[in-house]
Amino acid sequence: MKLSKGYDLWNKSLHIIPGGTGLLSKRPDRYASHLWPTYFDSAKGIGLIDLDGNKWKDFAQMGLGCAILGYNNKELNSHVYRLINKGINTSLNCPEEYELAKKLLKINKFAKGVRFCRSGGEAMAIATRIARAKTNSTKIAFSGYHGWHDWYLSTNLQNKKNLNNHLISNLSTSGVPKELKETVYPFKFNSVSELKKILNQNKSIKIIVIEGARKEIISNEMSEYLNYVQKKLNKIIIFDEITSGLRTSTAGIYKKINFNPNIVVYGKALGNGFAINAIVGDETMFVAEQSFISSSFHTERVGFVAALKTLEIIEKNKLWIHLDKVGKKVIKSWNEISNFYDIDINTNTFYPLPSFSFNYKNGLSYLTFIVQELVKSNILASGSIYLSMAHTETEIDYYLRKIEPIFKKLSKIIRSKEKSKNFLEIPLINTGFGRLT
Amino acid sequence: MKLSKGYDLWNKSLHIIPGGTGLLSKRPDRYASHLWPTYFDSAKGIGLIDLDGNKWKDFAQMGLGCAILGYNNKELNSHVYRLINKGINTSLNCPEEYELAKKLLKINKFAKGVRFCRSGGEAMAIATRIARAKTNSTKIAFSGYHGWHDWYLSTNLQNKKNLNNHLISNLSTSGVPKELKETVYPFKFNSVSELKKILNQNKSIKIIVIEGARKEIISNEMSEYLNYVQKKLNKIIIFDEITSGLRTSTAGIYKKINFNPNIVVYGKALGNGFAINAIVGDETMFVAEQSFISSSFHTERVGFVAALKTLEIIEKNKLWIHLDKVGKKVIKSWNEISNFYDIDINTNTFYPLPSFSFNYKNGLSYLTFIVQELVKSNILASGSIYLSMAHTETEIDYYLRKIEPIFKKLSKIIRSKEKSKNFLEIPLINTGFGRLT
Repeated sequence: MKLSKGYDLWNKSLHIIPGGTGLLSKRPDRYASHLWPTYFDSAKGIGLIDLDGNKWKDFAQMGLGCAILGYNNKELNSHVYRLINKGINTSLNCPEEYELAKKLLKINKFAKGVRFCRSGGEAMAIATRIARAKTNSTKIAFSGYHGWHDWYLSTNLQNKKNLNNHLISNLSTSGVPKELKETVYPFKFNSVSELKKILNQNKSIKIIVIEGARKEIISNEMSEYLNYVQKKLNKIIIFDEITSGLRTSTAGIYKKINFNPNIVVYGKALGNGFAINAIVGDETMFVAEQSFISSSFHTERVGFVAALKTLEIIEKNKLWIHLDKVGKKVIKSWNEISNFYDIDINTNTFYPLPSFSFNYKNGLSYLTFIVQELVKSNILASGSIYLSMAHTETEIDYYLRKIEPIFKKLSKIIRSKEKSKNFLEIPLINTGFGRLT
Repeated sequence: MKLSKGYDLWNKSLHIIPGGTGLLSKRPDRYASHLWPTYFDSAKGIGLIDLDGNKWKDFAQMGLGCAILGYNNKELNSHVYRLINKGINTSLNCPEEYELAKKLLKINKFAKGVRFCRSGGEAMAIATRIARAKTNSTKIAFSGYHGWHDWYLSTNLQNKKNLNNHLISNLSTSGVPKELKETVYPFKFNSVSELKKILNQNKSIKIIVIEGARKEIISNEMSEYLNYVQKKLNKIIIFDEITSGLRTSTAGIYKKINFNPNIVVYGKALGNGFAINAIVGDETMFVAEQSFISSSFHTERVGFVAALKTLEIIEKNKLWIHLDKVGKKVIKSWNEISNFYDIDINTNTFYPLPSFSFNYKNGLSYLTFIVQELVKSNILASGSIYLSMAHTETEIDYYLRKIEPIFKKLSKIIRSKEKSKNFLEIPLINTGFGRLT
């Protein structure tokens, strides 16, 4: 397979764009290095055509979870274009900002106010600004990944291992103000005991930031504890549902577990790839009026319009039922195949985003082998799949037919205890960002 | 004139969107309160149609400077739509991220690296993160407006008047970490003596952030001093050209004054309203690789595609020549009219963004009167005009014909020393954000 155009472009990009791309997860070494197409020319459904004209099917990350309707949805695109031709960013407001806020309040019944922006990291910076204004306190306990902004990365100032389980091992805090040391404290996902300990040790922590789901959704035990902390200790709870939201309903995981956070943050899937984030919360939101949060592009029309239409299509299709069904099928099949070939894997239970990992010391080599072999079948995939409306059962069956013989080969490799260099043609996957894989 | 739909929607918005809109400058009280249409349904050139079907001409802010080509440019829209239909946000990168970086390096010859994002505030947070990583120092001296992020607003923690001349009087720092106190120091635009004093008093300030232009462009004296500070004292100079950029060439004011900053930041006009910002810099940019700056929406295709086409159209039309010519005509006419009617005004010399102000104690009342009377002629305007390609000489003549009799009326008001309540039907303009008006 010829991949020279993409490969050349990547090498040129590395010279003029620090990191080669604005999103860590779009670097080819996250997958199959030089065997990875890296760039696309066009996309439709789960199909991609790269710069060299090769066709691919995406069982990887669908724009890191953005394309919940599949790529290039015609109904969405036509609607967006109709609105683009009415003007997108003028001296007056577009009514869709209000309409989207209203729609989000209808979906998130606990909420009273909404603000918008255009990237997930910024959305979380807005949510924490509002929570800090409300509590008049800087300190935050958090679990999970919440972007690149200072408030979050500053946790590594007290211990450079703080983000190891949430983002990247030993992440450098280069450029993050040292003044923010000891303001932000991590706890393991769903670990009530860790959160409890942190809150006991740091009484001035008045804000808790948590993801709706990682491999699993928030547990009952955690949900009950959060309820106690919110109601009895008056702490502000922020749910980051940028990744988990819109996959189990048009709202977030919080609805599924029947716990109302003070603020919930959406993004990614909200506009099916068009840039739009929403910060949705109870009366806490209105302290935003005492702070200054303002930006030209926060009021640009395309994002609102795309989100309104995306929510409509998700609702109309009850998309979460499909994602759940297909996700369960994938998990079941991974387990069946690996059982059959006597391979020891773990699978998760957040079905819209099924994932597996190998229970071996050489697990990463084995996962790299899977990625490498799937790429040869023109399938983009790794240890997790961000499912979309375009992942039909037919497509899933296609994927499973392709992965089955690869598990068979892997079974022999595992049994023969072969060295990686004998079965890997690519470097080990760079798993810096190990959150969901 | 019926404005009830817009007015009703605004009142409903205030209840569910803190502040009513994501951009301070889109609040109606910045202009003519209940006489201001507040919302648009469609726009074309400098024309807007509000929710009640009234037609307006925009001599105000053109999307706060975004719509440099005028609203709803067909050439741009068709191009964007063609690319939307190829997919916008996938698991692979779009080649336009590289193409836009390459184009920006061609335009900004001093530069070596580029990163992108989707709002001006975030762009400045990226620029300062990179500069702090490079210098291993938090402290910054700044002049002007640079968004809502913590690094910037924190200057008001040491003195709540610090942002009075740059943003809003006595801005609350609600929600900004108190730990950032005494990290950021303001100086007056073009005041070499103030900057010198701050740098002498705070040797650990290694970063200077400055706007390319406010009412005027950066002076020769300031340019020379910045050159000394950069070359001899090894400080990092960041030019925020989010507002000033692309109006005197496809680059920023820095090019006009022949000084190369380390980093220049663009936005607003770059995508003619589509959300796209660029952080363009010398080798300093590559310390970004030691930090973590990453976001899904930073790699979305629409912004890159819109920026490439906008730059092409600006270049093809040598738009800066038009903006300069039309801006000079506006300034000249304002001065002629006010001279004729014996009204004392100040005008600026940054011609693509002409502005005037009244030299009277009641200046704000008089400006409010101008806004109020222009609104009655279906003209959106205040004390400054963000000129665009759609502001033809014919349109400018139309505006001048409308404003002349209003200056005549104002002349009588000034001479008769009438009280505001006798000539104002609307509250005084809320000038919180007094930067460019």
